[in-house]
Amino acid sequence: MSTRPREQAQPLLIVGSMAFDDLDLPSEKARDVVGGSATYASLAASLFAPARIVAVVGQDFPDAALISLRERGVDTAGVERAKGKTFRWWGRYADNLGSRETLDTQLNVFADFRPILPDAFKDSPYVMLGNIHPALQLEVLAQVRSPRLVVADTMNFWIEGERKLLGEVLAKLDLLVINDEELRQLAGIHNIRRAAAAVRRLGPKKLVVKRGEYGALLFDDNGTFFAPAYPLDGEIDPTGAGDTFAGALLGYLANVGEIDTANVKRAMMMAATVASFCVEDVGTRRVERLTRQELAWRLDELRQLVHFQA
Amino acid sequence: MSTRPREQAQPLLIVGSMAFDDLDLPSEKARDVVGGSATYASLAASLFAPARIVAVVGQDFPDAALISLRERGVDTAGVERAKGKTFRWWGRYADNLGSRETLDTQLNVFADFRPILPDAFKDSPYVMLGNIHPALQLEVLAQVRSPRLVVADTMNFWIEGERKLLGEVLAKLDLLVINDEELRQLAGIHNIRRAAAAVRRLGPKKLVVKRGEYGALLFDDNGTFFAPAYPLDGEIDPTGAGDTFAGALLGYLANVGEIDTANVKRAMMMAATVASFCVEDVGTRRVERLTRQELAWRLDELRQLVHFQA
Repeated sequence: MSTRPREQAQPLLIVGSMAFDDLDLPSEKARDVVGGSATYASLAASLFAPARIVAVVGQDFPDAALISLRERGVDTAGVERAKGKTFRWWGRYADNLGSRETLDTQLNVFADFRPILPDAFKDSPYVMLGNIHPALQLEVLAQVRSPRLVVADTMNFWIEGERKLLGEVLAKLDLLVINDEELRQLAGIHNIRRAAAAVRRLGPKKLVVKRGEYGALLFDDNGTFFAPAYPLDGEIDPTGAGDTFAGALLGYLANVGEIDTANVKRAMMMAATVASFCVEDVGTRRVERLTRQELAWRLDELRQLVHFQA
Repeated sequence: MSTRPREQAQPLLIVGSMAFDDLDLPSEKARDVVGGSATYASLAASLFAPARIVAVVGQDFPDAALISLRERGVDTAGVERAKGKTFRWWGRYADNLGSRETLDTQLNVFADFRPILPDAFKDSPYVMLGNIHPALQLEVLAQVRSPRLVVADTMNFWIEGERKLLGEVLAKLDLLVINDEELRQLAGIHNIRRAAAAVRRLGPKKLVVKRGEYGALLFDDNGTFFAPAYPLDGEIDPTGAGDTFAGALLGYLANVGEIDTANVKRAMMMAATVASFCVEDVGTRRVERLTRQELAWRLDELRQLVHFQA
């Protein structure tokens, strides 16, 4: 599963949120942690391909965070700095990290976000639509000239209220990445296999279902594939692990270029590996200091986890 | 993963419960379903090896159920028919089968069960101790001359109250099969990996953690292995799936004879396959009519589920 250097891969575009997260974790209360789906996803994607990010931040957002992204190969030319405060989320995790509750959400500048792509981003062959209003997702797609692969990740907020627009987005997707509860809600079917079949009929030929610590399932025309999660022994902060998974998945696909079932399987194994690192420290810290060697070693462990001689 | 005919395998001994289950399922209310851990486990094990069962039933237990077990290769000489009524459990499942509650438990003759092995059973090389009081598990072990492999499956009722005796049992085990919540309770540690390490220090060198629809994990001196669950699209009744998994696991190991990591991995894949059938009909019905061809096909599907070219 060797990958080429990032610079040799085609660029990918990620639209989503950038945020300050206040995290009440069992290990600490972390404040003003730079997060948001676009932050996590682009950092993970940039391990494999040049990532372009479209998002909005407020005047309170530190330049240092954008510089840090750029140093890791993320093009932040699409990050708009708007008047007001950055999107902020406050969450409290259970002692065992198995569940969390939202204590506060302040949309701030994210409430009026209208994603505008810099001209240089409009040729992006790989596109990930993060968890923003489906009308905005459609606006983003309208600005991209001829994408090779359109992926959406997570759409929980819009399943109830924006069914029709969501349907328009689904029809334009090549790959939908979604967690299992969203899938059930979207399909109105509890059984994962039947829910997946129903959602695939709405558009995305390929569907990746994220199940957190229980791994991820792929459903496509060639059948079903399961990528396990890496069994960690020291979870610190699960925030952003799903975004990290999706970003690494798209990054790997942009790196290899050929979007077939075999590569999506490999991309899922890689994505599960990168996501496992995300959970090992607060925010993006662990992925920021991740080395190629660490990634290769753990990927090999993950492969061994499901390996047996029949 | 070819297996030899059952008759060529060494016999295994299973001690556990036989019961009438009343099952409030989403699809039907099933009454007087013949169940119990020993019933499910021995039926599954007998697909691969001669199974010997030690259990107690009441005067109300139908001969036909014992005959049916014998027809499938289960030696029921160790089933004691006691004065009184058979153990009875009444459970109600949620609409999505994701959870269940116990509405009533009547121990009846099971309350005074003292497992006595027929002489012909005392040479059993493979032994499974089901979910009975640890004092009784020790009594069973004392009656077996020189077991090659001692397995225990599920011990939730005794973790709180019988810690010391449970420790004695654990020290005598080669393999413990347990579900994830039991593992956490037994270790007093939430993290699966660390909990597994702690429980392995109490005795069983090999530990298989059952996670229901999320698969099963093996922890042993050679590392960690994950066997996925088969993603079903028509679950009917999950009752006994865990017992079926454990029974098939032991049956497969008795069939191949050599208890090494590679064979335990194969046994887990086989066990996951057999258990998936259990869920497809009420009680033991689906496993009773399971054919070798169906088993082989689904096992192959399960292998494909985690197969990818690195």
